[in-house]
Amino acid sequence: MLLLYTMKSRKFARRMKYVTMSDVSELLKWMTPDMISFGGGIPDPITFPDEADFNEMLTFLKGVKDKAFQYGKTEGLDELRVSLSKFSQKHSIVTDPENIIITTGSQQVLDLTAKIFINKNDFVAVELPTYMVALQVFNMFKPKYIGIPLDFEGMRTDILEEKLRKLYSDGVSLKLLYTMPTSQNPAGISMSIERRKHLLELASKYDFIILEDDPYGYITFEGDEPIRLKSMDKEGRVIYTSTFSKILGPGLRIGWIIAEENIIKQYVRIKQITDICTSPLTQYIAYYTLENGIVDKKIPIIKRFYREKRDAMLNALEKYMSNSATWSKPIGGLFIFVWLNNNIDTRAILPDVIKKYKVAYLPGDSFYVIDVRNTMRLNFSYPSINQIEEGIKRLSMAIMSYSAQEQVVN
Amino acid sequence: MLLLYTMKSRKFARRMKYVTMSDVSELLKWMTPDMISFGGGIPDPITFPDEADFNEMLTFLKGVKDKAFQYGKTEGLDELRVSLSKFSQKHSIVTDPENIIITTGSQQVLDLTAKIFINKNDFVAVELPTYMVALQVFNMFKPKYIGIPLDFEGMRTDILEEKLRKLYSDGVSLKLLYTMPTSQNPAGISMSIERRKHLLELASKYDFIILEDDPYGYITFEGDEPIRLKSMDKEGRVIYTSTFSKILGPGLRIGWIIAEENIIKQYVRIKQITDICTSPLTQYIAYYTLENGIVDKKIPIIKRFYREKRDAMLNALEKYMSNSATWSKPIGGLFIFVWLNNNIDTRAILPDVIKKYKVAYLPGDSFYVIDVRNTMRLNFSYPSINQIEEGIKRLSMAIMSYSAQEQVVN
Repeated sequence: MLLLYTMKSRKFARRMKYVTMSDVSELLKWMTPDMISFGGGIPDPITFPDEADFNEMLTFLKGVKDKAFQYGKTEGLDELRVSLSKFSQKHSIVTDPENIIITTGSQQVLDLTAKIFINKNDFVAVELPTYMVALQVFNMFKPKYIGIPLDFEGMRTDILEEKLRKLYSDGVSLKLLYTMPTSQNPAGISMSIERRKHLLELASKYDFIILEDDPYGYITFEGDEPIRLKSMDKEGRVIYTSTFSKILGPGLRIGWIIAEENIIKQYVRIKQITDICTSPLTQYIAYYTLENGIVDKKIPIIKRFYREKRDAMLNALEKYMSNSATWSKPIGGLFIFVWLNNNIDTRAILPDVIKKYKVAYLPGDSFYVIDVRNTMRLNFSYPSINQIEEGIKRLSMAIMSYSAQEQVVN
Repeated sequence: MLLLYTMKSRKFARRMKYVTMSDVSELLKWMTPDMISFGGGIPDPITFPDEADFNEMLTFLKGVKDKAFQYGKTEGLDELRVSLSKFSQKHSIVTDPENIIITTGSQQVLDLTAKIFINKNDFVAVELPTYMVALQVFNMFKPKYIGIPLDFEGMRTDILEEKLRKLYSDGVSLKLLYTMPTSQNPAGISMSIERRKHLLELASKYDFIILEDDPYGYITFEGDEPIRLKSMDKEGRVIYTSTFSKILGPGLRIGWIIAEENIIKQYVRIKQITDICTSPLTQYIAYYTLENGIVDKKIPIIKRFYREKRDAMLNALEKYMSNSATWSKPIGGLFIFVWLNNNIDTRAILPDVIKKYKVAYLPGDSFYVIDVRNTMRLNFSYPSINQIEEGIKRLSMAIMSYSAQEQVVN
């Protein structure tokens, strides 16, 4: 397109300054075939329906063609909401279908939540580190952040309590707390049951809302799934969200929210003007897989498959990096978070690491609302077991080399 | 769900006050089988692919399963963007695939556009009347509106010019002009070629952006499609958007934008945090239908079918309401807009009209940024020809009865 005129940046709204391209997209541009990437967050295709199941799904679609191509209710297909209420019950959340709204992936839940709740200068509490894209979405409405550190038992609710006391004594209140209590992205950490209880007590005492983001809660690798905040919620303060992206396929773009009716109503209002409804066609696919046990059948397969990859990465880290770093031991999810012993700026060295060592990761700094530079997020769901071993070896060599340089500099 | 606590409305963001449930949803609640509704805006299922085509589509999907279930690029599938650039060329817009982004319906385009461009108190120009949901989306970011009246040749660009002169002499500028130049929703009016030229001259002179919303441009009933603003745009000021909702099926939730690279880049940034990507699965369906001539084959069928319904409604209006109203003569789209001769408040009487006369319409007031009460939008795409005749008869009886009352009152 030949253009005589170029849009001046002053034409864009101020909020666009806070919206940066995701690191993941940037990383993809540097990909070469010999590079091993731990940077993405995409599921392995093994999680998608197999051919036989997919064929049956398509046969089912033929019977609902005219409903699949028409507008659907903003709340989502009734059939899918009923299926999800049954699915939830098997996973500890008792809910009526009316308390569920279907969304266009769980990313949309962040967008809708920001629109519904966040006024400028409202206080929003997040984990340190937290899901970076949640921060970008919230930033559009300019909240103030309270960062709560994590340790290996999850959010330090004692520190949250301290900060809440301070906040309330200053006459301000917390609007929203955003947490991923199970297999957190990026840290891969799960909150202990005691901390979960404490968090709900604090929510009640200090009257705030909790957004429980649970994309990985159904693919935990050991023992029972941790009890969900929503299933402990007696006051309707918890807005629960999850997604089909990690248990069936992100290409469907189907997530869901479970919340009290009063809150669901707000989500319906705002979703209606955001994208009218989520595709009934992909909703029918999600419905079919739930009703026909395809998701239930897939979950143990996904768990086993990812557990092997997680173990491979934990073993490789132990073998190659135990002198230079500590890392999370995720009970589920797709990620391990690494804290380097030395004060290396992982963002600054990344282009060089990619070029010289042919390995990529996601710098941890974008997951923080404070300045932390010596961390990285490693994805184990997409690379093969061999790539995991080889990639961690390369990474350890890179880190050793920069550690040596840093010691010289200091 | 038993709840001890109910969310207080003070917890919601202030912007939620401006987001009202669409009239359409409210109307649906009152529907009884004997009622004739002109209220909705949903396409007739005849526009959806027939069974044979759908079966072939599903066979095609089998070959792309693992890509259909995976995350896709935020910009959209490359294949679909190439198909759309070819489709656009046949419809007067010459564009590279790189100037296209796929969106989750064209409703999402309004959301993304508001996020990208509108700061609080920015001036946005809209038609009187305009698409009410666009207003709701823009309202989230609190712009100031300039309303430009329509006549039967579309937007009164002479009045726009006057208002621009006044605005600029006050030292402020127009950020964005939102228009649906062809078969406008709700008014069913199309802008004349002279007005289109004048609008672009004004955009250049006064340096503003035009969002050209074109959901109905491909299903015009007579002669050639009116020339698109985008195809007359030499300066990259026009952001063009359309959708598969009216030429294939809204259930796919696929729309697209054509704009200059600099602007597309902003849409990609903001879409990435809004819903990551549009479903690759439904994108593959859209791609398949374009590549295999299904859309091209459908368009004349849809045109013929809707033209008959439009004619039925125009004839019924002529027969029953020529003494009580005037109305638009749409060259395409799904709607006729009615201006009543008497000053009847169409919103106030609606519940009564539905109950007593068993006919529904959409009150026109929500389409205006000024106070206009005696208008209504009538949909002709969904009701049958018989329902159209009978419904307009009922409507005329209702209007006659209220006109008589009004004359008594005045």
